[in-house]
Amino acid sequence: MKKFFTTTAVDFLGKSGFGVENLPYGSVYTNEDTVPRLVVRLGDHAIDLSSLTSIIGGLGTKAKSAVTNQPNLDALLTAGRPIWSELRNWIRQTLTDPAHTKAVVAVATNINDINMAMPFTVTDYVDFYASENHASNLGRILRPNEEPLKPNWKHLPVGYHGRASTVSVSGTPVHRPKGIRPEKEAAPSFGPSRRLDIEAELGFIVGSSAPQGEVSLAQAAENHLFGVVLFNDWSARDIQAFESVPLGPNLSKSFASTISAWVVPWDALDAARVVPPVRDESLVQYLDDSSADPYGLDISVEVYIDDQHVSTVPYSTMYWTAPQMLAHMTVNGAALSPGDFFGSGTISGSEPYQCGSLIELTLGGEEPLISRMGEKYSFLQDGQQVTLRGSAPGPRGSTIGFGECTGTIRPAT
Amino acid sequence: MKKFFTTTAVDFLGKSGFGVENLPYGSVYTNEDTVPRLVVRLGDHAIDLSSLTSIIGGLGTKAKSAVTNQPNLDALLTAGRPIWSELRNWIRQTLTDPAHTKAVVAVATNINDINMAMPFTVTDYVDFYASENHASNLGRILRPNEEPLKPNWKHLPVGYHGRASTVSVSGTPVHRPKGIRPEKEAAPSFGPSRRLDIEAELGFIVGSSAPQGEVSLAQAAENHLFGVVLFNDWSARDIQAFESVPLGPNLSKSFASTISAWVVPWDALDAARVVPPVRDESLVQYLDDSSADPYGLDISVEVYIDDQHVSTVPYSTMYWTAPQMLAHMTVNGAALSPGDFFGSGTISGSEPYQCGSLIELTLGGEEPLISRMGEKYSFLQDGQQVTLRGSAPGPRGSTIGFGECTGTIRPAT
Repeated sequence: MKKFFTTTAVDFLGKSGFGVENLPYGSVYTNEDTVPRLVVRLGDHAIDLSSLTSIIGGLGTKAKSAVTNQPNLDALLTAGRPIWSELRNWIRQTLTDPAHTKAVVAVATNINDINMAMPFTVTDYVDFYASENHASNLGRILRPNEEPLKPNWKHLPVGYHGRASTVSVSGTPVHRPKGIRPEKEAAPSFGPSRRLDIEAELGFIVGSSAPQGEVSLAQAAENHLFGVVLFNDWSARDIQAFESVPLGPNLSKSFASTISAWVVPWDALDAARVVPPVRDESLVQYLDDSSADPYGLDISVEVYIDDQHVSTVPYSTMYWTAPQMLAHMTVNGAALSPGDFFGSGTISGSEPYQCGSLIELTLGGEEPLISRMGEKYSFLQDGQQVTLRGSAPGPRGSTIGFGECTGTIRPAT
Repeated sequence: MKKFFTTTAVDFLGKSGFGVENLPYGSVYTNEDTVPRLVVRLGDHAIDLSSLTSIIGGLGTKAKSAVTNQPNLDALLTAGRPIWSELRNWIRQTLTDPAHTKAVVAVATNINDINMAMPFTVTDYVDFYASENHASNLGRILRPNEEPLKPNWKHLPVGYHGRASTVSVSGTPVHRPKGIRPEKEAAPSFGPSRRLDIEAELGFIVGSSAPQGEVSLAQAAENHLFGVVLFNDWSARDIQAFESVPLGPNLSKSFASTISAWVVPWDALDAARVVPPVRDESLVQYLDDSSADPYGLDISVEVYIDDQHVSTVPYSTMYWTAPQMLAHMTVNGAALSPGDFFGSGTISGSEPYQCGSLIELTLGGEEPLISRMGEKYSFLQDGQQVTLRGSAPGPRGSTIGFGECTGTIRPAT
């Protein structure tokens, strides 16, 4: 591991996606561990934070206690931005100081030798619908005789609450859900979903409390956004079509959602910030970002099914930004808690091959994809493995890697 | 307190709603306490369970540890039905045995001398829409040119996930939410809701895990339903009207929901069980209760605004039962956890004065109510206090009381 601490090696790691510019957090366990441990990732190694802070000084008491003997990010999420910054700076200094090489090596484990756990406890989970392309595509497919976008869409980030307790870490298998499906010429039937889909999204992890809600755009970005993960909001389109009017999706989504295991710090994405799309409607004050710092994100997410590349979706095209979604969630006075989590909604670019769901990629199931084995499919088949991979530009020519968000479809029970 | 233990006094308590037939649980604190304590209510007294079990024997180790030094019901919810039954039987025996009078008196506090805390931690919260009258009334008001009930309504209990972290205990003030409201002849505007409403519901508290979901009707009733509370799902109708298509209500509900402080045990409601309404559509197997025990509940909920009686709503008219809602929530494989909570949806009877929301009672705001001060109002005004009170028949002519679910509207911040 000594090679990490030469300039060339650090440059190399930066290009790999997991250099000192990134430093994502995770919760890991070896086959011997009884509880997981909080780690930070550098290259292919997971570095035990509790051990590292016990060996090397310089970290304040609060930051130290937020990582000491912690199984995951929960305590750190509560601590707030000043502690997050202090910890991140200390980690970077420690990992790049050749004097600490031995200590770091002593508490590092190759990521091939560990299992990943949920990196935080989800308090509440909201899923948005922030891609204009996705919302328009779905409108055209599901409601062909109406305007594709509803009148509210450009005035506020449309979203709904989902099931917090079924958000799982990458690698967790997904059982095909059963539910009530519409039938063309008969009463609705009960059985396994026939239209199991993916939704390629980003997920945002919130820290620091706001008991009165009303978080501004600037407060969202500065005080509350802790980290970003890849997110797959598995969706049973047939169950969704039957159940969703008028209260929105429920069982079609609540069976499982998957996040990538490495939480990329919000602060690692400074170089990825871009101006979001031009706003077609003037926005009410709490959403108006015309004079705000740009909070669009130039993150690219690739979608693979059984290692076959299916699409690449550009997060930079998202109409609503993460601070806007967070400000919206809380403008009614809803309290924000550490562990609050929200998804962006499916990311879809303007081109057909840039869509983040199969219902879009197959035009509502009408234009099947073809697997490597030559089989046609429009929606997910049992045994298929879906993997999202993501990356963003980092500082000084580096890359910020998100790792993988993966799940394999198991047959209905 | 000695009078509790004469036969006459116990009969009297039974008629009061809080006799030994009920024994609801709560989490309370005095002005001196730093953390709340788990109690059971008898008459006007809260009896400290941790203290009681330390003084009087006979309770098994598991049941004892589920209440010892516990601030609320969380540990007991995890323990499961056999422990719930053991504890309930032990409490009833202890409270009715004159030999224990002194011990009970020593750990009892008058409910006027305590404050109530949230009795459990909400894991996930789902709100249903189980009243045919309410769903039809809302359909007629909001979508006058369409069939009032959507095609899915009689095939499954329609519901959606809400915000778990803003479910609060009775007495918590409710700030009028701000949000984006539709305007008749102009762009939507941002400001305090002008159509703040109530929804008189019951809430059901779930215990015992079901990691694979798929809870049957019988399992729901026997293993998982722990207790019942009154529930007010405050709703901003103007925000709801603008935001809800296509993903359902979000900000119009997520600012606050209120539960009554005393959790009535599911087992205390045996005498209240009634046959639910005739099913107009044949139900798929997991919802089919034609040969199941009857799980309708004869519970009456009264709605007061500033102590003025506004309506009385009959829970016995609800189309979908609590076990059906729970079976539905999990049929897709969604895990069930201790602390899962679901609301029934607004309870409305067939008569106009039996509606559980102001939007129904005022015919969409067209027929205002008149306050004691002679002022007309269709939706809630700042300063108004809303109180739900509920009761059900108990065994041997007793009454099962639910206490109050109350909240006062504070102006928007």
